This record gives sequence, C-alpha cells and structure tokens, in this order.
Amino acid sequence: MAADTHSLDSLVQALRRLPGVGVKSAQRMAFHLLQHDRDGAELLSRALHDAAATVRHCARCHTFTEAEVCATCLDPRRDPTRLCVVETPADQSAVERTAAYDGLYFVLMGRLSPLDGVGPKDIGVHSLLERAGDGTVQEVILATSFTAEGETTAHVLGEALRARGLHVTRLARGVPAGSELEYVDLGTIAHALVDRR
Amino acid sequence: MAADTHSLDSLVQALRRLPGVGVKSAQRMAFHLLQHDRDGAELLSRALHDAAATVRHCARCHTFTEAEVCATCLDPRRDPTRLCVVETPADQSAVERTAAYDGLYFVLMGRLSPLDGVGPKDIGVHSLLERAGDGTVQEVILATSFTAEGETTAHVLGEALRARGLHVTRLARGVPAGSELEYVDLGTIAHALVDRR
Ligand SMILES: [Zn+2]
Ligand SMILES: [Zn+2]
Repeated sequence: MAADTHSLDSLVQALRRLPGVGVKSAQRMAFHLLQHDRDGAELLSRALHDAAATVRHCARCHTFTEAEVCATCLDPRRDPTRLCVVETPADQSAVERTAAYDGLYFVLMGRLSPLDGVGPKDIGVHSLLERAGDGTVQEVILATSFTAEGETTAHVLGEALRARGLHVTRLARGVPAGSELEYVDLGTIAHALVDRR
Repeated sequence: MAADTHSLDSLVQALRRLPGVGVKSAQRMAFHLLQHDRDGAELLSRALHDAAATVRHCARCHTFTEAEVCATCLDPRRDPTRLCVVETPADQSAVERTAAYDGLYFVLMGRLSPLDGVGPKDIGVHSLLERAGDGTVQEVILATSFTAEGETTAHVLGEALRARGLHVTRLARGVPAGSELEYVDLGTIAHALVDRR
C-alpha cells in the first residue's frame, strides 16, 4: 500500500492482534469502522486504553478487577468454605449464571498446556495452594474444562491439593440437560454411565 | 458484572461493534488482550484513534486515503483512459495484486442493496458519472461482485454510463483457474459457456 494509507494499514495490522482475526477479517473490520461506524472506532479506542490501564488481577482469586480484591471475594454472603477453580473469568461467569453455587472462586487465567509452554507457575498453582490452605476452605471444586488440557490441569491440581489434606471434587461429566440420548456422542454417554448418581 | 469490572465490561461491549463479533468472541478477545497482550491493546487503541482521525475519501475515486487525492489517482504511469469500478478498497487491492490492470479506479464503498436501504446516492453514482465523463475515460470496467446485489449494481451503473455514451464492460464470469470442470458448480459452467471467448 502507498504512504497515503499508512494509518489504515496500521489499523489492519493492529486488528490482527485480536485472536481469530486474519487479514481478511481485519480488512473487513477496518472498512466497517471507517465507512460506517467512526464513533465505534473511537469508543473501542478509549475502551482498550482504559481497560489496559486499569484492569488488574484480584489478589485473592486472580480474576480481572479494578480493585485490590474483587467484589466477589469481598461479598460476605458467599460461603467461604468452598472454592471453585475455573480457567477463565468467562467460565466463572458461566458458573455464576447457573445460580447453583454461592462459594468463592479461584481463576487460573489459563490451563496447563506443556506444548504451548504453559506450566504450573503460569496458572498460579502456588497461589491456589496458599489460598485453599487458609484454614477456612473445606472443599475445592475443580471446574476446569473437559478437554484434554483441562482434565490434565484438574488432575495435577487435584493431586497437589489432596496432598495438603484438602477435600477435592470435580464437576460431573454427563449428558447435557435437554438432550435426546440418540444425538449425544458416545464418549459423553460413557462418562455419564461412569459418573451415574 | 460488578462495579469493579466496569472497564472490562465496557471493552467487551465496544468489541461487539466489530462486524461478526458476538459476545463470546468479544469476551475471548478482551481476555486475550488483557491477559497476554496489553501492548497489542494499546497499539490497537492508538491505531483506531489515528485512523478515525486521519482517513478520509479520495476526492477522485472515493477510496480511503489520508490525502486529498490518493496515490493511485495521482500516479502518472496509470492509464487514465480506463476506469475500473469496484465495491471496496479490498476489491481494489485484489485487482491490483493481479498486476493485469494499469488503469484507474472508482471505489463505490458499497453496493446497491434496497433491502438494507443502500441506494444510488450511498454508492456515489453521481460522482461516478461525473468522474467517468471527464472526457479522458474511454472504457468503464464494472468489477462489482458476482452476487445478486453486485450484479444489480453493475446493471444499474451500466445503464447510466451507457446512456452517457461511455463504453462499458464487465469482468468475465467463468471457471476459476486451476479448477477441474467436474467439481465446478453448474451455474458457473453455464456462465462460462455464455461468456466463452
Ligand atoms: Zn477475587
Ligand atoms: Zn483516488
């Protein structure tokens, strides 16, 4: 491209820093913002700057917050004897939306992935052990995802937590609510049989 | 979400202004930037602001540029007797990459879409007629896309340009280079027969 499109080219390059955005999508996004939504471009510009400047990690549970300790950790109505371990803030939100849990959380901000160079340090295992060993927590619920990496993470964390005498549980694997058995994959049915109540 | 995640929530909302980005993608993008790429967040913030502030439309061809008239329109090596009409700057780039065209362009910045309220005014038909009628342009090549809306746009523009005595052509429809005929859809083969050389 020519010198007279420098800031457009820079925008397309910068949009490619977003996960899952290739050059075609980045061009489409830049075109849309510049042609149809310049207010959106300015809004997103400010939101990115503000978030990058103010969002940090909760000192107790590691989730994103703008405070030293997040609102959930400070909420006196939550049951401090149970700690639910999730991979991301989005997973935490999903558990919250069920309204079936009123304990506290620990957010790993990732999961073990040796191939990608993500080890125990990167997901704050030491902080988790310290947090879970506060003398108040009685049960640690491992709610990492049911993928190979999520299962490995749950296994490694479970071993370490049990070695410290903590009671560790894992979310049940099973058939999703509302599913017709005939359309559920066989692995899921097999797990639902093993974990049957 | 709680008050202590206000700027994170704002970022997720702002990311949804990007085309094709739903709430899940926006959360994933925000998480990635805040957890793994704060430099990318600041870079994108600045690129959005700069582009929104400096990018405007070429006075001659309507494409994005930071100058009054774009570098392509000013290039004395381009053949000013031919004008290629495309829908977007990305389409213009695609034609440029073929290295098979050395004329000038007119970028519609859209295509006729009555259902979405995009009429002749929105794609600058008046400017195109003025531009093509400069006395130098001898051939207008309609390179709008081969979709229903792109074909309608080409038809409407073709009528108006021919009414002004201009020589109008359209990109050939046909079998993509490198294709085995057996795997090409029938409509494409039919068009390739009609447009046979
Ligand atoms: Zn917290
Ligand atoms: Zn131009």
